Amino acid sequence: MTNPTKAKITRQDINDAAERLKNWGRWGPDDEIGTLNNITPQDIINAARLIRKGKAFSLALNFDNQGPQSGLWGNRFNPIHTMLATGVDAVAGRQESIGVRYADDIVTMPLQCGTQWDALGHIFFGEQMWNGYDARLVDSNGAHKNGIEKTKDKMIGRGVLLDIPRWKGIDSLDDGTGIGVDDLEQCAVAQQVEVRRGDFVIIRTGQMERCLRAGQWGGYAGGNAPGLRFETADWIRRTDIAAICCDTWGCEVRPNETTGESQPWHWIVIPMIGISMGEIFYVKDLAEDCAQDGVYEFFFCAPPLPITKAVGSPVNPIAIK
Amino acid sequence: MTNPTKAKITRQDINDAAERLKNWGRWGPDDEIGTLNNITPQDIINAARLIRKGKAFSLALNFDNQGPQSGLWGNRFNPIHTMLATGVDAVAGRQESIGVRYADDIVTMPLQCGTQWDALGHIFFGEQMWNGYDARLVDSNGAHKNGIEKTKDKMIGRGVLLDIPRWKGIDSLDDGTGIGVDDLEQCAVAQQVEVRRGDFVIIRTGQMERCLRAGQWGGYAGGNAPGLRFETADWIRRTDIAAICCDTWGCEVRPNETTGESQPWHWIVIPMIGISMGEIFYVKDLAEDCAQDGVYEFFFCAPPLPITKAVGSPVNPIAIK
Amino acid sequence: MTNPTKAKITRQDINDAAERLKNWGRWGPDDEIGTLNNITPQDIINAARLIRKGKAFSLALNFDNQGPQSGLWGNRFNPIHTMLATGVDAVAGRQESIGVRYADDIVTMPLQCGTQWDALGHIFFGEQMWNGYDARLVDSNGAHKNGIEKTKDKMIGRGVLLDIPRWKGIDSLDDGTGIGVDDLEQCAVAQQVEVRRGDFVIIRTGQMERCLRAGQWGGYAGGNAPGLRFETADWIRRTDIAAICCDTWGCEVRPNETTGESQPWHWIVIPMIGISMGEIFYVKDLAEDCAQDGVYEFFFCAPPLPITKAVGSPVNPIAIK
Amino acid sequence: MTNPTKAKITRQDINDAAERLKNWGRWGPDDEIGTLNNITPQDIINAARLIRKGKAFSLALNFDNQGPQSGLWGNRFNPIHTMLATGVDAVAGRQESIGVRYADDIVTMPLQCGTQWDALGHIFFGEQMWNGYDARLVDSNGAHKNGIEKTKDKMIGRGVLLDIPRWKGIDSLDDGTGIGVDDLEQCAVAQQVEVRRGDFVIIRTGQMERCLRAGQWGGYAGGNAPGLRFETADWIRRTDIAAICCDTWGCEVRPNETTGESQPWHWIVIPMIGISMGEIFYVKDLAEDCAQDGVYEFFFCAPPLPITKAVGSPVNPIAIK
Repeated sequence: MTNPTKAKITRQDINDAAERLKNWGRWGPDDEIGTLNNITPQDIINAARLIRKGKAFSLALNFDNQGPQSGLWGNRFNPIHTMLATGVDAVAGRQESIGVRYADDIVTMPLQCGTQWDALGHIFFGEQMWNGYDARLVDSNGAHKNGIEKTKDKMIGRGVLLDIPRWKGIDSLDDGTGIGVDDLEQCAVAQQVEVRRGDFVIIRTGQMERCLRAGQWGGYAGGNAPGLRFETADWIRRTDIAAICCDTWGCEVRPNETTGESQPWHWIVIPMIGISMGEIFYVKDLAEDCAQDGVYEFFFCAPPLPITKAVGSPVNPIAIK
Repeated sequence: MTNPTKAKITRQDINDAAERLKNWGRWGPDDEIGTLNNITPQDIINAARLIRKGKAFSLALNFDNQGPQSGLWGNRFNPIHTMLATGVDAVAGRQESIGVRYADDIVTMPLQCGTQWDALGHIFFGEQMWNGYDARLVDSNGAHKNGIEKTKDKMIGRGVLLDIPRWKGIDSLDDGTGIGVDDLEQCAVAQQVEVRRGDFVIIRTGQMERCLRAGQWGGYAGGNAPGLRFETADWIRRTDIAAICCDTWGCEVRPNETTGESQPWHWIVIPMIGISMGEIFYVKDLAEDCAQDGVYEFFFCAPPLPITKAVGSPVNPIAIK
Repeated sequence: MTNPTKAKITRQDINDAAERLKNWGRWGPDDEIGTLNNITPQDIINAARLIRKGKAFSLALNFDNQGPQSGLWGNRFNPIHTMLATGVDAVAGRQESIGVRYADDIVTMPLQCGTQWDALGHIFFGEQMWNGYDARLVDSNGAHKNGIEKTKDKMIGRGVLLDIPRWKGIDSLDDGTGIGVDDLEQCAVAQQVEVRRGDFVIIRTGQMERCLRAGQWGGYAGGNAPGLRFETADWIRRTDIAAICCDTWGCEVRPNETTGESQPWHWIVIPMIGISMGEIFYVKDLAEDCAQDGVYEFFFCAPPLPITKAVGSPVNPIAIK
Repeated sequence: MTNPTKAKITRQDINDAAERLKNWGRWGPDDEIGTLNNITPQDIINAARLIRKGKAFSLALNFDNQGPQSGLWGNRFNPIHTMLATGVDAVAGRQESIGVRYADDIVTMPLQCGTQWDALGHIFFGEQMWNGYDARLVDSNGAHKNGIEKTKDKMIGRGVLLDIPRWKGIDSLDDGTGIGVDDLEQCAVAQQVEVRRGDFVIIRTGQMERCLRAGQWGGYAGGNAPGLRFETADWIRRTDIAAICCDTWGCEVRPNETTGESQPWHWIVIPMIGISMGEIFYVKDLAEDCAQDGVYEFFFCAPPLPITKAVGSPVNPIAIK
């Protein structure tokens, strides 16, 4: 879990992984939801049995102008919330002609500015995206394939938390710390939870909590971060999990393990494996509860907003124990 | 269930109902979630047992420019979805300096333009809102009390569908048709489902499906509609349900039963009773499944986006059987 | 000026005109402002002498939700104006911590939803735009060439109004009525105004006023309209005017004179000739004044907002006599 | 021009100035444009004669995400420019069904985030605004009185530049430096320009150029700044100028001269005197030209976007010599 000392990931490594891990066609030529297909109705029934305390955890940061965006990445900004009608107006008599006193509001937000799902149309490999669709099917009118709305009733199943820093006995992983396959497997063993086909796996690095404690986001959104190493793409493919989520901006370790390419793990896991990715998850409360009762599995329900042709969606993920 | 022939609801009737049904202070002076307090952990555990088939239903309309808004109400408009980065750009080599090929996007939307939760700060009674808070606490900076973010981990429990037109043997209720207490109770008996404390009760009128079949929304968002009669406020208070949802724009019958005031039922149920309201729910698929298996209860999870100080939130409500 | 009965404009006609009228390179390989180069400092000095009455006319429609957009064209919508702070809040004491009472606001608007300039990056011919730049230089990050900000100090000079319906003795031209070169020339003669190199030529069709009188926009923004015939592209090239403006949505006659291609005149005049185009100009008051004093020339100042890399800009054009 | 050593401005001073300088009713009870009434047609004719070189200067900063907003003031942010259609899409064949290849775009921006006019509805005194209108007439639906659209054909006349740092022989005034009446008068004498009734007076402090040279805005938008002292309100009233503009965020010296109230000069000049204020003007090029030819007067045309009921407008002000 220390910074990798071995050779950097090369473009050839990326290409090899792409070929080795490719899931295209596995669920038919028309599939647009990828590894979410790994969830069976029985998995959902089984997951429901994990609701034993009746205790729900929201894994969302609130969406507001205190969010993590600081201009580091591609024109993203924090949510802008404005009012169309207010209680102050109502009391001042400015709504009398309407006959009911009310408030109303509006939001302008990048879909990936806060707690969020990446849709499968979010990342491309060469000229293609998930399941081999032409990347040009994501144009100025949106994602004509692999849009987030295709997953609207799919983000439900068994959730598993892998709390890496707690397992290591530390508050949070340092930026740049890579999490490898061994880390994932040993952490799961230590926390007595088995990762299974169809799971929503949530990785805690502690980075977000570190920022929240410090009262400043710094490079959280787009800068350096602890996160998954490139090799974990193989683990994702092998375990056949449904989705992978993290308390960081992009799940993947940064600085990246490459010399040139940016976000090499993304190149593989979204377009080639077809996995949905959850980012900027707030896991503090859930993690503390898991530590307390020793149960690292739970029912998970994180429905995206079905914004037509969108390549992501803000989400309020719910874990229930 | 025919159009009311008896006397219209007067301002005095509204005032009387406000006094009679007021829940203020019931959950302490600092409460901001109202009847969501009716849900106990055991209710959630019990609701989980309703997941027997592992089948999930999204109750959201997709969010896009084909949505129901047509300018009838208060400057609301349909979602505006634009791209910050596209696959076409990626393939054309316009992202080479970034090192990863990706798409990204943004939305501008009124929070109540589609499938949505009303927060308790959405409607006022006189100069106050839920739990007696000053209505002026909802100003241009948002709802300093009773914002939607307070409910972020609360919209979970047992769901019950009351399919009024199916019980009546018709496709949909006509606009202007009021649903009374007798209708709710008889429908529940006929559909062999009991409404209990802490439930999320979803009313189907068929209006949305009628519009979808016709291929035009007409006055759906702000015009006439079938819906709940004023008298059902008493039923809501008596049954102690957690939330009430509908497949219409505003749950309430329109034209309203009043001569002057607009949306009289809203005056009572949100600010006085403190109930969260779900609107523009898409219930067709769920209703067909309920009709088929005869089971009108289910696990319900509809987490709002915790947009800080917002008076509503778009939502993708999930029903699971 | 009747609907054309002769043969339709073919793709070959368009290609021929493109070659015949091409201005590429005329002002150097790095030019991004096209025919605005036709204006000399002396032209501006001369134009200033047309200010004889000290009377200014705004040629802008107000920007609000009553604007002409009705969803006919490419996701354009009317301006959305919302408040960040209000006087009602101020009086209610909601701003006391700030120390000054104020209102503030925000707009979301397509840049071409109302009275507007088209930038030279707005229309492409094949894979190129004005001056031969690759059309792909207009990507999701905007127009890296031919953006509106390049014209920020250029929209100043002599304005000329050609009031076609007044010359014809009618209120407005019918939709579909084409204005040809003869019309332009004869109207100028009749109105005793000479069109000169470097002019801002404003064409009145009366369509906007017809819509305003009717109280509904109908197909104004994207539907049928009176307007310039394809042949006028040659006139524009020959006269070396600086810009062409109109009281319609797109200057060009609609239905178009083609069988297949849309907006053939646009194909030529923007990318090949390099002329800036003003659209949705409100000319009623100016036209009435010109009719009254018989003077159809004036000082013209219509500065675009220099929105970096934008392909258009809302504008409040000013004519001064 | 050093930091004031005499007593601070008190609330009583503000109240006294309000009474002393009040222009309410001067142009009738229905007036909504204040001192813009000071401009006569003859003033415009005379101003036109100042166009002697045919040289135009744009006084606007470009509007983009490099703008000065940094979150210091009231939820303002820099412009967000996104594309609705692109040349990349066009070339990739994604627009073939449309028949014309084009780009289109959209902006979301606070109206006062960059170079801008304050409307008279922007600042309140007590419960009133310009001409005595109730401040509550600016509600969530905008400014029902004193909106920027009322000035749509008024921002035209004689412009005068007072280049304070150049007169002082320095690059820029330090933040906190107050400009007094003596400074204005002596600078005008030194620069051989007379300030007259109906003028648009533009003050240069050099602060913006200092930020541009440094490559960072720092506290430019909302922090400390050089600017006009409170006493200049009397000068504004006495000179009967039409408008006052500056190269700073708010014209007024900051830290303010008060102990409690914020922006005391604003309290007086906008709501009591009724003067339109231009802010964040880019005057570098104009100032250099004035220094070179010794002529500090020019024709000025700065039409606001007539956004209905807005309390400000972005603007591209044009000075012509």
